[in-house]
Amino acid sequence: MFLAAPASSTLFRPTVLKTAAARASQTRTRAFRCCAAAMSDKLKPAARVSGQRKDVWSFINEAAETSPNQPIVNMGQGFFGYNPPPFILDAAKKALDRVECNQYSPTKGRPSLRKAIANAYSPFWGRKLDPETEVTITTGANEGMLSAFMAFIEPGDEVIVFEPFFDQYISNIEMPGGKIVYVPMHPPKTGATKTSSAADWTIDFDELERAITPRTKMIVLNTPHNPVGKVYSKEELQKIGDLCVKNQIIILSDEVYDRLYYVPFTRMATLSPEVERLTLTVGSAGKNFYATGWRVGWLIGQPHLLQHVSAAHTRICFSSVSPLQEACAVGFEQADSQGFWAETIRDMKAKMDRFNEVWHELGMPYSEPEGGYFVLVNMSKVRLPEDYPFPPHVASRPRDFKLAWFLIQEVGVAAIPPTEFYTDANAHMAEDYIRFAVCKNDDVLEEAKERLRGLKKYMG
Amino acid sequence: MFLAAPASSTLFRPTVLKTAAARASQTRTRAFRCCAAAMSDKLKPAARVSGQRKDVWSFINEAAETSPNQPIVNMGQGFFGYNPPPFILDAAKKALDRVECNQYSPTKGRPSLRKAIANAYSPFWGRKLDPETEVTITTGANEGMLSAFMAFIEPGDEVIVFEPFFDQYISNIEMPGGKIVYVPMHPPKTGATKTSSAADWTIDFDELERAITPRTKMIVLNTPHNPVGKVYSKEELQKIGDLCVKNQIIILSDEVYDRLYYVPFTRMATLSPEVERLTLTVGSAGKNFYATGWRVGWLIGQPHLLQHVSAAHTRICFSSVSPLQEACAVGFEQADSQGFWAETIRDMKAKMDRFNEVWHELGMPYSEPEGGYFVLVNMSKVRLPEDYPFPPHVASRPRDFKLAWFLIQEVGVAAIPPTEFYTDANAHMAEDYIRFAVCKNDDVLEEAKERLRGLKKYMG
Repeated sequence: MFLAAPASSTLFRPTVLKTAAARASQTRTRAFRCCAAAMSDKLKPAARVSGQRKDVWSFINEAAETSPNQPIVNMGQGFFGYNPPPFILDAAKKALDRVECNQYSPTKGRPSLRKAIANAYSPFWGRKLDPETEVTITTGANEGMLSAFMAFIEPGDEVIVFEPFFDQYISNIEMPGGKIVYVPMHPPKTGATKTSSAADWTIDFDELERAITPRTKMIVLNTPHNPVGKVYSKEELQKIGDLCVKNQIIILSDEVYDRLYYVPFTRMATLSPEVERLTLTVGSAGKNFYATGWRVGWLIGQPHLLQHVSAAHTRICFSSVSPLQEACAVGFEQADSQGFWAETIRDMKAKMDRFNEVWHELGMPYSEPEGGYFVLVNMSKVRLPEDYPFPPHVASRPRDFKLAWFLIQEVGVAAIPPTEFYTDANAHMAEDYIRFAVCKNDDVLEEAKERLRGLKKYMG
Repeated sequence: MFLAAPASSTLFRPTVLKTAAARASQTRTRAFRCCAAAMSDKLKPAARVSGQRKDVWSFINEAAETSPNQPIVNMGQGFFGYNPPPFILDAAKKALDRVECNQYSPTKGRPSLRKAIANAYSPFWGRKLDPETEVTITTGANEGMLSAFMAFIEPGDEVIVFEPFFDQYISNIEMPGGKIVYVPMHPPKTGATKTSSAADWTIDFDELERAITPRTKMIVLNTPHNPVGKVYSKEELQKIGDLCVKNQIIILSDEVYDRLYYVPFTRMATLSPEVERLTLTVGSAGKNFYATGWRVGWLIGQPHLLQHVSAAHTRICFSSVSPLQEACAVGFEQADSQGFWAETIRDMKAKMDRFNEVWHELGMPYSEPEGGYFVLVNMSKVRLPEDYPFPPHVASRPRDFKLAWFLIQEVGVAAIPPTEFYTDANAHMAEDYIRFAVCKNDDVLEEAKERLRGLKKYMG
């Protein structure tokens, strides 16, 4: 039913649309260039924002607009298809009635939320976290990570980032002048032929050690990992931690999916006092409470590190959204008694399993996630028609961009090409994969599956 | 009643507290230094966040904590003492029930809000603003301004800033490596002896022209002005605009108090097409709708400038708080029909007049604000006791810091010393002034007045 249009029309309609659109776009580009030439050089933007490649979200949106399969089922961006639980929404509404909750919060965050987070995480840390000095609230995890980079990176300092990476890391490290040193996570060798655990994406620890130089100031870790779905084992974390302790490298541990794990999950900072002393842990209420639009995040860390993150945050955003901080405080205070943390794991794992059934049906291998809400599917078995009319900006990108474009056009499902999260040098590692977000309602998952069954005719 | 404690006790109790506090603080400082010495140099923070003077808000908080006049009446920070109007709060609550309003908004902002702002401002611009390309939503005006600096400033580029300035400008310009060139607003010559209009704080246009160099990339304007309360006249804006057109300087016009003016208000971008082409206008829902904790701001500008601001914003915060954007959209849609814009001027002017009565009673001159919610009062007539025990970090600052400390300790009213908003070279211009925020409930204003009457005994 979602592929009702005849194949030829499905194949060619987007091209026609594309051609017309491309013509209009060329005209606009020319007009803009002309205007830009006339424009004083003095109005030109800084290098940090100019001359960038089209980002993946614009790519997906553009593809979605030209697809004949409307509306597109969006399994791309990791936003939730459902609301935060009622006890948190109610708390947000109550906060809106309180005068002080609508005004500036302290730059470090509302005391209620810092206290609730300190209380919620103290058991994991095995000691009492100090809400005054060891928790700071940020405008989402994103601005929290930027604050950490701004706090520590001087121009020329090196930051180790694993590939694939969350794309915002890159611009956030470059903003203060940091140099990124990439270390790849190696996909399972049998990824194209059989499903295996996301644990099989591995670090080569010799490679990691060789990446360390005297200028290495920080390393960015992400567990549970987006997009791989890997939860780093305690042994892997210990090896990374040992290298960081030996070389005194600050560890920025992005643990925004910390409530979604399907295997035992170790938090980096809890490994040892030596590792904790180097670690800033990043959390996200948007991810924890199904509210990616709330922009409430935090960092946990010892005062000798965290005070500088707070200082940077103050200069970037001054303070973060007040009433929703109050709601998140209630979220943390009541999550256990409401059974929310157990429910969130149970529900997301069920969605993951429900969605991945379709790959078993199709005989398409994937990386079985250990955490988070993304799944990487290996689509090497999908044959893209040789004469398929990919627009030039797609044709010039790795195979996964073509796969993503093809999926949107032919079956009407949007998903993310993961080479966006790689440097050009290592993009080949992931060019057969596609990332799907399963944090959607079950009917959406079922609709996506039904559409994806349409891939069968393009398979070997 | 607020000065019930005998004068001697009032004078000396804080000292005793201070001495004890200072001792504890010294011990902490020593312990921290020792720890810092042992700590690897590799963990040291970036220069941009280290070695800063104690900021004015910490100064005020510390003073408030040691004051015997508890609770302090806080006329310092410009947060509202009352809630946004019910039609906006209701809209926020409704948005919280909508799934899409709790998830990521587009990085440029929710379409509903961009459209509402474009519609609300088009009449001032005298043309239809395009919500797609001429309005971008930011995480408060603060992050909006940072985004503008990040978009255009390369290391060494110069930005002209008038003194007094909003303190966040400075770190936000320095973050991308900008060099600030200061131009003072000159206070009225008779400021110490008689009340006159905030219009009497003036720019020396020769001085401004001399500040322009080939490296001048941007100028920051603020009208209505914080803390002066000046609304720049059309003639003044035209002179500034002419210089910017002549030298192709980007104008960042901070107009966050744009709904609070008590004399005719001209928006910089509306002067002429030549000026508009150079101008980015900054707005704030926090200031417009009595919700400084909501962190919703925006920039209006032509696409050749604004696209780069949007790009920078995407890298700083990714997107801004979703449900409250939706509420602000309703705010703009209904403000006129609810009579809100007229009411906000009427109410704030009434508060201003109510509060300033006390200066007439005391014979203390002030700058009669033309806009905004701050008033600068000239306290040269207040005699600070020669042997008054100011702690060292207060004694070393200009007279206005001593006045602010004294006010908190002796009458229990917190207000802001404006030399915080000056460079050391020009601080002398404002060292007799103190800034009060009047966006408080009337009973708070009356309580503040009652306390401030206690200053009589320290006057001439």
